[in-house]
Amino acid sequence: MKLLEDRIKKDGEVLDGDVLKINSFLNHQVDPQLMMQCGEEFKRLFADQKIDKVLTCEASGIAPGVMTAYVLDVPMVFARKKKPSTLNDAVYWADVFSYTKKVNNKICVEEKLLHKGENLLIIDDFVAQGEAVKGMVNIAKQAECNIVGVGAVVAKTFQGGSDWVKQHGLHFEALASIDSFKDGQVHFGKEN
Amino acid sequence: MKLLEDRIKKDGEVLDGDVLKINSFLNHQVDPQLMMQCGEEFKRLFADQKIDKVLTCEASGIAPGVMTAYVLDVPMVFARKKKPSTLNDAVYWADVFSYTKKVNNKICVEEKLLHKGENLLIIDDFVAQGEAVKGMVNIAKQAECNIVGVGAVVAKTFQGGSDWVKQHGLHFEALASIDSFKDGQVHFGKEN
Repeated sequence: MKLLEDRIKKDGEVLDGDVLKINSFLNHQVDPQLMMQCGEEFKRLFADQKIDKVLTCEASGIAPGVMTAYVLDVPMVFARKKKPSTLNDAVYWADVFSYTKKVNNKICVEEKLLHKGENLLIIDDFVAQGEAVKGMVNIAKQAECNIVGVGAVVAKTFQGGSDWVKQHGLHFEALASIDSFKDGQVHFGKEN
Repeated sequence: MKLLEDRIKKDGEVLDGDVLKINSFLNHQVDPQLMMQCGEEFKRLFADQKIDKVLTCEASGIAPGVMTAYVLDVPMVFARKKKPSTLNDAVYWADVFSYTKKVNNKICVEEKLLHKGENLLIIDDFVAQGEAVKGMVNIAKQAECNIVGVGAVVAKTFQGGSDWVKQHGLHFEALASIDSFKDGQVHFGKEN
């Protein structure tokens, strides 16, 4: 998605450790028009699939997730990183390993929000090692849902997450695929 | 907003301790069409104001916040509850007291995302005691922004948060104002 690549080139910051900071339009400040365009692009890329629900993860997945759900006219569920006090019903849990902090965190989704046989599109803002996606796939499988695909706004294809998704037979689409940060610059691949 | 009140009556669950759980369309599963309608209603209610940016708080504020920003055609910033590893620049911090857990949590916004003199519309999903709103007002003041108003998707008007906002001279709007949960039922006030 050229619009997104151009924006990453213009506003993204490459930090040490192959980290891309895009706080000005995705991860802290959000450009809602761009998020809507991402949603429309996901709709186009998964147009051959029946989608009943979008599954994403708080916090940065919510903006692209809700816009994708809006254009698909389906509900969106966001996995929570803590079980809130109002979450008094049974939940599905999954581990999400944090490479930054070297600890297992957990995400959860209330059981009654996912139904057996439902067709889920998983949306994430960033797929690097793909730990959040692995957690969402785990939860979708516990709920016996069908995963119609995984859509990433940005994928760092050299960190294994996108390969993991494809190796598990899932349809993977990234709106911007980053191959490397050689010389402190963002280098895009051909997948978008 | 009658559509929202009807939805709360239909799908909301009143729990002990004057807690309203609306996980099926706002706080865990999200109805994106309803969120867009909330955004349009906030635009109408604050139509007399110049708005440069929407400020909200992760996680449940993001969906109504980004839809409001979409219809206003302005950026949205969500305050973070933890400082992420990529947030390497200076941030504004504010305390947010948790009545459930009796502890002070913190929220933060990167300084360079808020500019002196900018006109901010603060959006929150739920205003009860209003602690998250107080934190966002605090941050907006640190940044020397103008607060053009505070919009709540749902306000529990008997818990003080909406009064606090008005007592501080701020324009307050709630799309659904709950006066009480007498007899385990949701009773709406006249403000919406």
